[in-house]
Amino acid sequence: MQPAAARVGETPSMSDTAHKANMLARVILNPTQEKRLLAGHNWVFSNEIREVFAESEPQAGDLALVVAASGHELGLAFYHPHSLIAARMLTRSPKEPIDADFFGKRLADAIAYREKVCPGENAYRLCFGESDGLPGLIIDRYGSILVLQVLSAGIERRLDLIAQALCALLKPQGIYLKNDHRTRSLEGLPLECRTLSGVVPEKVPIVEGGLRFTAAIGEGQKTGHYFDQRDNRAYLRPFFANRIVLDLYCYTGGFAITAAKAGAKSVLAIDSSGPALTLAKENVKLNGVERTVSFDEGDAEKALDAFALLQQPFKPDFIVLDPPSLVPAKKHLPKALRLYAKLNSQALRALPRGGYLATAACSHHVSREDFVLMLRNAQAKAQRAVRFVSLRGQSSDHPILLAMPETEYLHFALLEVL
Amino acid sequence: MQPAAARVGETPSMSDTAHKANMLARVILNPTQEKRLLAGHNWVFSNEIREVFAESEPQAGDLALVVAASGHELGLAFYHPHSLIAARMLTRSPKEPIDADFFGKRLADAIAYREKVCPGENAYRLCFGESDGLPGLIIDRYGSILVLQVLSAGIERRLDLIAQALCALLKPQGIYLKNDHRTRSLEGLPLECRTLSGVVPEKVPIVEGGLRFTAAIGEGQKTGHYFDQRDNRAYLRPFFANRIVLDLYCYTGGFAITAAKAGAKSVLAIDSSGPALTLAKENVKLNGVERTVSFDEGDAEKALDAFALLQQPFKPDFIVLDPPSLVPAKKHLPKALRLYAKLNSQALRALPRGGYLATAACSHHVSREDFVLMLRNAQAKAQRAVRFVSLRGQSSDHPILLAMPETEYLHFALLEVL
Repeated sequence: MQPAAARVGETPSMSDTAHKANMLARVILNPTQEKRLLAGHNWVFSNEIREVFAESEPQAGDLALVVAASGHELGLAFYHPHSLIAARMLTRSPKEPIDADFFGKRLADAIAYREKVCPGENAYRLCFGESDGLPGLIIDRYGSILVLQVLSAGIERRLDLIAQALCALLKPQGIYLKNDHRTRSLEGLPLECRTLSGVVPEKVPIVEGGLRFTAAIGEGQKTGHYFDQRDNRAYLRPFFANRIVLDLYCYTGGFAITAAKAGAKSVLAIDSSGPALTLAKENVKLNGVERTVSFDEGDAEKALDAFALLQQPFKPDFIVLDPPSLVPAKKHLPKALRLYAKLNSQALRALPRGGYLATAACSHHVSREDFVLMLRNAQAKAQRAVRFVSLRGQSSDHPILLAMPETEYLHFALLEVL
Repeated sequence: MQPAAARVGETPSMSDTAHKANMLARVILNPTQEKRLLAGHNWVFSNEIREVFAESEPQAGDLALVVAASGHELGLAFYHPHSLIAARMLTRSPKEPIDADFFGKRLADAIAYREKVCPGENAYRLCFGESDGLPGLIIDRYGSILVLQVLSAGIERRLDLIAQALCALLKPQGIYLKNDHRTRSLEGLPLECRTLSGVVPEKVPIVEGGLRFTAAIGEGQKTGHYFDQRDNRAYLRPFFANRIVLDLYCYTGGFAITAAKAGAKSVLAIDSSGPALTLAKENVKLNGVERTVSFDEGDAEKALDAFALLQQPFKPDFIVLDPPSLVPAKKHLPKALRLYAKLNSQALRALPRGGYLATAACSHHVSREDFVLMLRNAQAKAQRAVRFVSLRGQSSDHPILLAMPETEYLHFALLEVL
């Protein structure tokens, strides 16, 4: 898809007395291109735009009125003249004021939803961008510390309003900007991490489903805590009882500690990141499971090859395989699916009859059906009969919009070797 | 796919002293057709067979050895000379005896699995055919009564062995044969319902997740209890609290009673089947929720049209839409998906902001992705913004084989109107 040059013209019959709403840039779509928006999707791609009318050259993050070729006003969006995602819808009401109240209301809705789906918890993804009607704004709550990722110019320019709303709603001890994600460059935004307000400690204690973890989020730290597997960790608890667990790509120990607390006999957790393992070991102590969980610093893929040969002294009957995203861009998908299939077939080979494989793929380039077909390929390679116990996804604090498959990125399955 | 005529020849070099295994029919596949079996699938289609060697014309339900064109022995199967599914794999061990012990072991495994996934329950699908390694055998357990559906000639001819194994394992009060499913005709089996052994009462009380239901299964009765939504009923409990629930296609009241017991303000349940509603009303009384649940006998589709116009006095903020299978055969799929989309869009229209739609499709012709795309179409038609709260499937007592998509037939989603 090539970005079409947005044409900047004069708004016709614009008078000096035009009220503010009329002074917005008007983004006019090509004929029929409103269809996806009407079906509930919230992005306009640059090649779908016929022209842009504005009093002056519209800037990245300007508010714009999105209009169908027929003249039908579709709603208000953040506009970006140079991004492939040229407009991100904020509201379907063309006259709704996009002000402090608007952001306060959206954030209050997001908090209310988490209170419903994560009752009693104080650490979760508080805002998940487009899924919460705030395109490009990710907020993770670690108790009284909020960590923001800003991925759109529209949010970047309204950060003061958002910080004010968050302070009014939650009175956080500190707000940290974790703006080091490479997608920021697509919106022309610099990479920077810094404290936005208050005081942000290097490490923050959190509780997830009764387990204790430390998230390292402050200056110089890079290891937070992934909330997107929270529901899957809870789901696996009854399956972990009396198992010998191999946790591959264990990061800071979320699955490993859950397994130990849920009655696993022993857990071997492997990751190649020294800092992640340091934190994982702290987390193990916090939960008093030092005698159950041990660690290996190393390459999980290589370790898995060894386990598949069944020559390791440690014989797992439960493997957790939660690799980082292997698909940085769509073009890498076929290669990544082959690697996923290889990892999964090795894991199936390493398991005895009755063994479980909890496996995930974390990338919005991998569709649910890609994931299921990849697992079938892995089974065929491994020559194991496999029960498909369940197919699940990201935790409910990462809500999905039915109309926007882009908001769905984590697939998870529990398999049982027959 | 056309059934290929299976050629019956002489087994080469067959001697009088050949042991029994050698006297089995040998089903030789066309070149490369073993691939799906090696990947874990358990069916051979008639057009995949090159020839069949047997001492005498093989009969429906005969045991056969399935062999790749290369001569590689793939395992033992039920053979059928006239069915499109010409062989149904029983075991990958070519020498495994298919005797009373075999069926006893498979059934014991099936029971052990249910004890794991349905702890403390005494009513569930005890055997789910190919998923439990017993192709064509469905067993529902209603306390001490077992209801069998036999869908393959291979099982039909070994019914005595199976009944003996079930009696040894469970000592049931009675075993009932519910052999009225039209797919029996594909295996040349007659339709008949009768008591196979013991005493089978007309009505059997069961408990599901603490709720009480009556299943009408004996002579002349046609309304059992669908176990396949058990896990979804349990999943929905926290969402039902304080809701006004419309239960469409309510059958014998499984969702309606779950909603009432989970704190729904009121429930209106609609079905067109008088006998199902009679039982539903009994079930409501059994659970003491007469004041919460009311019924309408009528066409759920027509009722939904009226609700979508928002002119009904009953204003639901939770709709359960669980229609019967609308896809009797693959060729009906496009039409059925349009009807599903219409029903779902009407339901979304009938709901206010914050309302829930719990919706299902029950047919192995509808793939998971068909279902999700159908829901997206329904959303587009309804012009509602929708949160995709979860995508789920059949209950765990209906296990799925990863390699056999045919074992997966129920899709379920919870949607929230935004």
